[in-house]
Amino acid sequence: MPGKDDRARPSAMAAPPEHLVVFDDKGLVPAIAQQHDSGEVLMMAWMNRAAVEETLATGQVCYWSRSRGKLWRKGEISGQRQRLIDFRLDCDGDTILLRVDQTGVACHTGRRSCFYRVLDGSGEVREILPVTIDPADLYGKG
Amino acid sequence: MPGKDDRARPSAMAAPPEHLVVFDDKGLVPAIAQQHDSGEVLMMAWMNRAAVEETLATGQVCYWSRSRGKLWRKGEISGQRQRLIDFRLDCDGDTILLRVDQTGVACHTGRRSCFYRVLDGSGEVREILPVTIDPADLYGKG
Repeated sequence: MPGKDDRARPSAMAAPPEHLVVFDDKGLVPAIAQQHDSGEVLMMAWMNRAAVEETLATGQVCYWSRSRGKLWRKGEISGQRQRLIDFRLDCDGDTILLRVDQTGVACHTGRRSCFYRVLDGSGEVREILPVTIDPADLYGKG
Repeated sequence: MPGKDDRARPSAMAAPPEHLVVFDDKGLVPAIAQQHDSGEVLMMAWMNRAAVEETLATGQVCYWSRSRGKLWRKGEISGQRQRLIDFRLDCDGDTILLRVDQTGVACHTGRRSCFYRVLDGSGEVREILPVTIDPADLYGKG
């Protein structure tokens, strides 16, 4: 059973050889998170080399926050963590597919997936996922 | 039944209002293609505004090719087209999830999905999807 000390537990995953992951001119690569069993696409975020290495070393997904300019240990504040199941690369090596086990919700709006808006025929959006956790409960109240 | 003239048949989808899709400083937005029924993540590519508009207008997925610097009508040469089922946006509007019906294979290597490489515990990659169509058959022989 996963416990509170998962972050400290190294997984068996070594970092990939230098050439396997192709970073862009900002040193970043897009990473898609997919729930491993249901197939839900949960979110897309970015990784730098340190985020890739930390994710593989700890088995807990870590992104690079472009807005904050630092490593983003997914769920560190909210508790909505992503445990890595497997780490896939596309044919060019410039996109990562993370198969994960998502605790709770992936989206900061309190929805399971960030992709909760569908375009309808008139070009307007319709929301297809409910808020299952109040965002105020995700990010603390003081 | 989809026919050869699908490309010419406008879908019922209007373009989204200007503010809904957030393009980056190069005028691009990442688009993830997912097989609508199986949940397979097929590929990730990029769209500019014209690609978004064409995709919605025709119901056939069109990307922007960064390497060729032009619209990339997926499957135009290979026949491996993606029919749009629905068009989703993430919470920030800066990533698109295309739910599609993929004809044949998404990957230029002849595999169903571009994400056919899994990192194993030693940091090496293992291929998990077979080549189901010879790439020579996808891109012509002269």
